[in-house]
Amino acid sequence: MDLTPEQRGEIDALRKQNTPTRRVCSPALEEVLYEPVPVLDHGFVRVIDYMGDDGAIVQAARVSYGKGTKKTQNDAGLINYLMRHRHTTPFEMCEIKYHIKMPIFVARQWIRHRTANVNEYSARYSIMDKEFYIPAPDQLAAQSRSNRQGRGDVLQGEEAQRVLDLLRDDAARCYEHYAEMLNEGDDGAALDDNRQGLARELARMNLTLNTYTQWYWKIDLHNLLHFLSLRADGHAQYEIRVYAEAMMETLKRWTPITHDAFVNYRMGGVHVSAKGMDVIRALLNGDEVTAQSAGMSPREWRELMESLGR
Amino acid sequence: MDLTPEQRGEIDALRKQNTPTRRVCSPALEEVLYEPVPVLDHGFVRVIDYMGDDGAIVQAARVSYGKGTKKTQNDAGLINYLMRHRHTTPFEMCEIKYHIKMPIFVARQWIRHRTANVNEYSARYSIMDKEFYIPAPDQLAAQSRSNRQGRGDVLQGEEAQRVLDLLRDDAARCYEHYAEMLNEGDDGAALDDNRQGLARELARMNLTLNTYTQWYWKIDLHNLLHFLSLRADGHAQYEIRVYAEAMMETLKRWTPITHDAFVNYRMGGVHVSAKGMDVIRALLNGDEVTAQSAGMSPREWRELMESLGR
Amino acid sequence: MDLTPEQRGEIDALRKQNTPTRRVCSPALEEVLYEPVPVLDHGFVRVIDYMGDDGAIVQAARVSYGKGTKKTQNDAGLINYLMRHRHTTPFEMCEIKYHIKMPIFVARQWIRHRTANVNEYSARYSIMDKEFYIPAPDQLAAQSRSNRQGRGDVLQGEEAQRVLDLLRDDAARCYEHYAEMLNEGDDGAALDDNRQGLARELARMNLTLNTYTQWYWKIDLHNLLHFLSLRADGHAQYEIRVYAEAMMETLKRWTPITHDAFVNYRMGGVHVSAKGMDVIRALLNGDEVTAQSAGMSPREWRELMESLGR
Amino acid sequence: MDLTPEQRGEIDALRKQNTPTRRVCSPALEEVLYEPVPVLDHGFVRVIDYMGDDGAIVQAARVSYGKGTKKTQNDAGLINYLMRHRHTTPFEMCEIKYHIKMPIFVARQWIRHRTANVNEYSARYSIMDKEFYIPAPDQLAAQSRSNRQGRGDVLQGEEAQRVLDLLRDDAARCYEHYAEMLNEGDDGAALDDNRQGLARELARMNLTLNTYTQWYWKIDLHNLLHFLSLRADGHAQYEIRVYAEAMMETLKRWTPITHDAFVNYRMGGVHVSAKGMDVIRALLNGDEVTAQSAGMSPREWRELMESLGR
Repeated sequence: MDLTPEQRGEIDALRKQNTPTRRVCSPALEEVLYEPVPVLDHGFVRVIDYMGDDGAIVQAARVSYGKGTKKTQNDAGLINYLMRHRHTTPFEMCEIKYHIKMPIFVARQWIRHRTANVNEYSARYSIMDKEFYIPAPDQLAAQSRSNRQGRGDVLQGEEAQRVLDLLRDDAARCYEHYAEMLNEGDDGAALDDNRQGLARELARMNLTLNTYTQWYWKIDLHNLLHFLSLRADGHAQYEIRVYAEAMMETLKRWTPITHDAFVNYRMGGVHVSAKGMDVIRALLNGDEVTAQSAGMSPREWRELMESLGR
Repeated sequence: MDLTPEQRGEIDALRKQNTPTRRVCSPALEEVLYEPVPVLDHGFVRVIDYMGDDGAIVQAARVSYGKGTKKTQNDAGLINYLMRHRHTTPFEMCEIKYHIKMPIFVARQWIRHRTANVNEYSARYSIMDKEFYIPAPDQLAAQSRSNRQGRGDVLQGEEAQRVLDLLRDDAARCYEHYAEMLNEGDDGAALDDNRQGLARELARMNLTLNTYTQWYWKIDLHNLLHFLSLRADGHAQYEIRVYAEAMMETLKRWTPITHDAFVNYRMGGVHVSAKGMDVIRALLNGDEVTAQSAGMSPREWRELMESLGR
Repeated sequence: MDLTPEQRGEIDALRKQNTPTRRVCSPALEEVLYEPVPVLDHGFVRVIDYMGDDGAIVQAARVSYGKGTKKTQNDAGLINYLMRHRHTTPFEMCEIKYHIKMPIFVARQWIRHRTANVNEYSARYSIMDKEFYIPAPDQLAAQSRSNRQGRGDVLQGEEAQRVLDLLRDDAARCYEHYAEMLNEGDDGAALDDNRQGLARELARMNLTLNTYTQWYWKIDLHNLLHFLSLRADGHAQYEIRVYAEAMMETLKRWTPITHDAFVNYRMGGVHVSAKGMDVIRALLNGDEVTAQSAGMSPREWRELMESLGR
Repeated sequence: MDLTPEQRGEIDALRKQNTPTRRVCSPALEEVLYEPVPVLDHGFVRVIDYMGDDGAIVQAARVSYGKGTKKTQNDAGLINYLMRHRHTTPFEMCEIKYHIKMPIFVARQWIRHRTANVNEYSARYSIMDKEFYIPAPDQLAAQSRSNRQGRGDVLQGEEAQRVLDLLRDDAARCYEHYAEMLNEGDDGAALDDNRQGLARELARMNLTLNTYTQWYWKIDLHNLLHFLSLRADGHAQYEIRVYAEAMMETLKRWTPITHDAFVNYRMGGVHVSAKGMDVIRALLNGDEVTAQSAGMSPREWRELMESLGR
């Protein structure tokens, strides 16, 4: 992640803001407000604004005139209850806004979460930065043999080197040609007076999918938890998971009670099917049970046994 | 609107909060934060929290590292442009949370706006307050003869008195029977030890639709403007319009530039159809044109002529 | 449920439609198309239209040019996989439209599900029917002592009779006064020429919450399953659960494979928390474990033990 | 657009389906069901399924037991009224499902419309086809000088040729390297046994943004109209507008009354601001009025004068 001096200055200016407010505040989140957390080779996540805290969830659940409850302990009890029983609307009463920089192929996965507000940097209107994602060597994974949607071993030696070279050279060449077709200097003047320059909305199509883009992304806490439950999960692609993990840290600062309840009930929890519950009850009774007798596919059985540590 | 001393105390305690924050603030909105604005005979609107200001719209539209623009004048130019051309996503970057008390039949209209977060006081879980809406005499309107969905003249004399008596007596009687069926005192103990008391989730069905309910309601600025364009409009039912009007005042405090752009381009604007534009161009040319020659229904023609002040 | 002869005739006319289509059809659902299924004392659920079937889910998941797979067995395998791993978007590719008649207090719970399309009968525009819900004697439950949001024993004897009388009399009286205030006969003419008649949008506030309303309600299959998982669940209020149960039957006819996967993985499944999984693994190892050692509240422990049949 | 013989066969098989249904049908849309309409050089739009017709809008608006109205003329009157007064919910009662093939940069604009259901071909799971968009020579436009978000003159001669060569060569080279990194033949076997092959979810990042992708896209009629009003508009980028125009044709077949109302009231209509209406009234009165006296910016004034044909 590389900030220009001007960007650094703008961020510092925002961080120096210090205005008294009657609103509830989250002191631990204020500490990192506006500050970019580096992710991947050129990306970042930074919190721009937020609304509410753990108490605001309780306050909304009770539709109260004042604060949530008198005691933090009671807030935790209620938040655990709400999380356990999937009473989701009180969590919608908190809101957070991020500024995120990520490769376009990551943005394409991300945008599938529709319940957020988004303003993306426009390549129709502006010129894209010359920055693209190149995986670190330990992330250069082979296609998984068992899972069509996953990674296997890390590539080694010549093959790895060849892949890195291709990714780097193709992205760089495509960007150079993008700039050539645009024919615009930093000052907006033509680089070559004999050419008109291709429209930005067309030239952008020459960029590769690892080019970085950025957006403002705003979401309520309930939908953020849903996003994190899918994207901080081990099945998520590494390149989006690292963003979700960085956001887990901001969650911990913002609403620590909700964070803990989320880790216990959602992230670390397991949804066991009706047949799965039958299997567990049978095992606890000491009964013999197999995938076949349980009516489960081998894969499903394996997943269940893994979750039971067997 | 009647607050209990305890409610008043809770609100005052929140208003005394004074915490330094790095977030952007809206000073004019802070002034009225938490304070209920009375609406109808027992209802209110109060702002509980907010995120962003006019500058945050500009900041998101530019996906910038710092504040929106350097000058307020430029912010206004961009916000007017965004409003005029219906670039709606930057307005989604601001969020506001209200606590609202309103009659159930108003809540039923209101909830049709789906793009908001809602936590309503639960009559399944809690006991409803004994408060119902009785229209002021000047709002006791007859059914409109020309518009099946509107009001005509104000009822007078005996008929008006009879209506007020019926509304008042029926609501009061239904509430009394609700309380009797519940059989619960303020302390939760049975009023009559020989009865079990009907479940709250059932007893509530005896209440009339003018009984007051309340909720926390949170929405982004774009969707708030959509709500206001429909509900602060002259065609909206009076009983919801007065809430929208109270919210217009909070909008003016929160994001004054957006408020003015909204009043000019949306509230005061007119959507003229293709045929309507043909009529206007013909009139400006001095050509003769009639409803028939324009292919418009008499009603549509009348609406157009009214908007042209003819 | 009472249909007028005219309504019965309209339904029969629709059921006689028999048009060849290139679209996929669900023969078992066609059998009951348009036919109202009675729910509660005057309510109903009826399917008006639908799009897609089990095969359409597979087709969308594969973004295929033709049908989903060649074999039903493969479709089931994929649908089970999608359901188990919460790949929800393919289920959004089916859509269903219902016409539902239910008491207003049920409609108020129902409308909280925001991801549906709704057209409700307008009491602003039209006159409501004289029909209200009165619980059957075996549903006249007392307030639960242990669960503030639930029912206890069924009321008996005098108390039960008194409740039924109150509900019936209050609803009837309120409706009579509603009609009197409206002052409109079936032909639209005034009942009493000396009165103007109160506007419909005002008069409706005198009705009780057990008055029946009706709406068209359209939803995609994914969101329908979410609705059913909450409302066909044992914790849902009886008066909405019976609607969800009637809809479960339509689901079984429409997309039988999805129905079975839903029953196994969602309705009959249990979401076990991280701590809960620790407890299960300890029990399977024969280790001693208590609520306290597991860090669970008594209530949470009780719920877990119940799900394990202990 | 190039279909494989297998794809062509699958489409023909679907088109041969001929099942009797009780549902309402749209005969003109049935004619083109499943058939791809070519768009751009390799893209298409094809209708996969639909629910409802013009009558279904009327039926829902009236919450009726039978069909909408008895007469088509009445249906048109009501639909015009609903469109004119922005009563949008009845239009939500119709639904349509498309299969669309388009360049990734078009898909990125498209997906910003959040109120649709989407299943995209997965480059994490599958291998992308070797197809990329190269603009036709008459679409190779220069950047507009007056509008940062638009096109100017068409590029000519050498510059045009150079742009076409760059777009073609870069896309082809990037795809070849993508295939090389994957190291997978059509049969799934390795092309080169000495290499493992990069994971699909990584290799895809080397593709350019003009690579074609495809998805199933399902939306209700109200939200489709909103999409079309933005994307069939002259300000939309050409490469997405041609898709919207192809969809306008399907709209005309599906719901012809709604199509005509949409063209008159939405597509051809103009939203005139409060200040704009003042100007029109002044002009009709023969009063002198200027941008300055009207308080309008030069650009806004110019837009208004253009819409008035002055």
